[in-house]
Amino acid sequence: MSGTGTIYGVGLGPGDPDLMSVKAHRLVSNATDIAYFRKSGRRGRARTSVDGLLRADVHEFAMEYPVTTEIPLDDPAYAATLKAFYEDCVEKLLAMVRAGRNVVVLCEGDPFFYGSFMHLHSRLLGHCPVEVVPGITGMSACWTATGQPITYGDDVLCVLAGTLDEESLVARMREADALVVMKLGRNLPKVRRALERAGLAERAFYVAYGAMPQQQVMPLSQKETDDAPYFSMIIVHGQGRRP
Amino acid sequence: MSGTGTIYGVGLGPGDPDLMSVKAHRLVSNATDIAYFRKSGRRGRARTSVDGLLRADVHEFAMEYPVTTEIPLDDPAYAATLKAFYEDCVEKLLAMVRAGRNVVVLCEGDPFFYGSFMHLHSRLLGHCPVEVVPGITGMSACWTATGQPITYGDDVLCVLAGTLDEESLVARMREADALVVMKLGRNLPKVRRALERAGLAERAFYVAYGAMPQQQVMPLSQKETDDAPYFSMIIVHGQGRRP
Ligand SMILES: C[S@@+](CC[C@H](N)C(=O)[O-])C[C@H]1O[C@@H](n2cnc3c(N)ncnc32)[C@H](O)[C@@H]1O
Ligand SMILES: C[S@@+](CC[C@H](N)C(=O)[O-])C[C@H]1O[C@@H](n2cnc3c(N)ncnc32)[C@H](O)[C@@H]1O
Repeated sequence: MSGTGTIYGVGLGPGDPDLMSVKAHRLVSNATDIAYFRKSGRRGRARTSVDGLLRADVHEFAMEYPVTTEIPLDDPAYAATLKAFYEDCVEKLLAMVRAGRNVVVLCEGDPFFYGSFMHLHSRLLGHCPVEVVPGITGMSACWTATGQPITYGDDVLCVLAGTLDEESLVARMREADALVVMKLGRNLPKVRRALERAGLAERAFYVAYGAMPQQQVMPLSQKETDDAPYFSMIIVHGQGRRP
Repeated sequence: MSGTGTIYGVGLGPGDPDLMSVKAHRLVSNATDIAYFRKSGRRGRARTSVDGLLRADVHEFAMEYPVTTEIPLDDPAYAATLKAFYEDCVEKLLAMVRAGRNVVVLCEGDPFFYGSFMHLHSRLLGHCPVEVVPGITGMSACWTATGQPITYGDDVLCVLAGTLDEESLVARMREADALVVMKLGRNLPKVRRALERAGLAERAFYVAYGAMPQQQVMPLSQKETDDAPYFSMIIVHGQGRRP
């Protein structure tokens, strides 16, 4: 692997450049080559959040998702299409590092926490040097936005994806002291029903765009509509030991 | 509250100053007054991690725990002693802000995630302006250190405290896809037995001092002794959807 560049999977944190780590800020500001995922036709949230930090001559590789919500998650065609997409991205990234370039891959939040970078990471390992820089997660920004700690004492924290089916959500919610439900978006009506069935709806907060300029925080009971953006989640605080 | 200073609860991240947020780095470097918890007779991990960043004339308020492990957690005397301690700290912090000082409280990781700052926070609210700055959690540093993502697809992540009793640990572990066990220390033998009973011991990693110079990472099966420092945890990676 000598003579090649390195791929950096860099956690950008929740979206406020002031909440990037010092290391991420330095890597992004000095980068000659960046790569990032985005939906086709969009600028991409990760890319937008580093506006103003980048070198004027930076080379950009936008990795555009071929599918997002058009194919059901459990359709084998979904996995196959994504697989081919990730393999193609990896090939292009490897061509860049073999040409001696260091590539900074922009990752929302923490790269190893439900991030898409992991699908590149597993395919890059053994082919080039890869370094991962952790970041502040979206959920840290969201519970901070509620103004209350998420866990006390020996509270159990459970992190769920809103993509789970309603029965699984309810079963997990009933076991948790503190709860985070990520990947809300179109799953909000189902997640709301599950919270009601688990007896948690009264304690739940809805947070959208945590640490971004358009941040929204409210008790879920005050959220009247069922539309939620991709960057939103549910927070239920633990109630553990408090001397 | 006009004319008073502000209390900043600042997440320092896992221990490497390069992993502090840009905002935390700025607040700490410019601080005229800092406060931090420590065990009596120690310098304190939070304080040590900002060595070299502080102003020469910074005023330091070391909040020294009266008890740590001498009294059992479930003894009412434990809660009573801590309560009096936190109240005393809050009185002193309020005297500082009433004198017009801004105070930066140094918090390990993220302040609202199992942090001691929350016990000050709840008592300060309504008495002076308080701002909380989220940080990279210790667990993000630890799973990054293992070189593998913690959660994929719709994996459920469960975060447990090693202070829970063995039966509770086993029950929660059996439900989780991905697992973090914090507050390891003297709880390691119990946590190891629980992991074995839950069938997770083979997949578990032990990480001590994540992102600090003395970082240690190994499969738990290779950790031969049962001594673990306070700054250590168990990581079990999820095995979810991977296109
Ligand atoms: C694919 S996951 C990526 C998580 C990211 N790696 C992290 O560490 O936060 C995307 C989900 O993260 C959550 N999320 C991430 N950042 C957020 C933010 N700033 N505000 C609200 N939700 C956020 C949303 O629930 C979203 O659906
Ligand atoms: C009282 S909790 C504080 C957690 C902190 N607020 C955070 O966000 O990570 C202390 C526990 O955090 C874990 N911890 C925090 N930072 C760590 C690190 N850098 N390496 C290993 N464990 C860490 C250990 O399990 C320790 O017992």
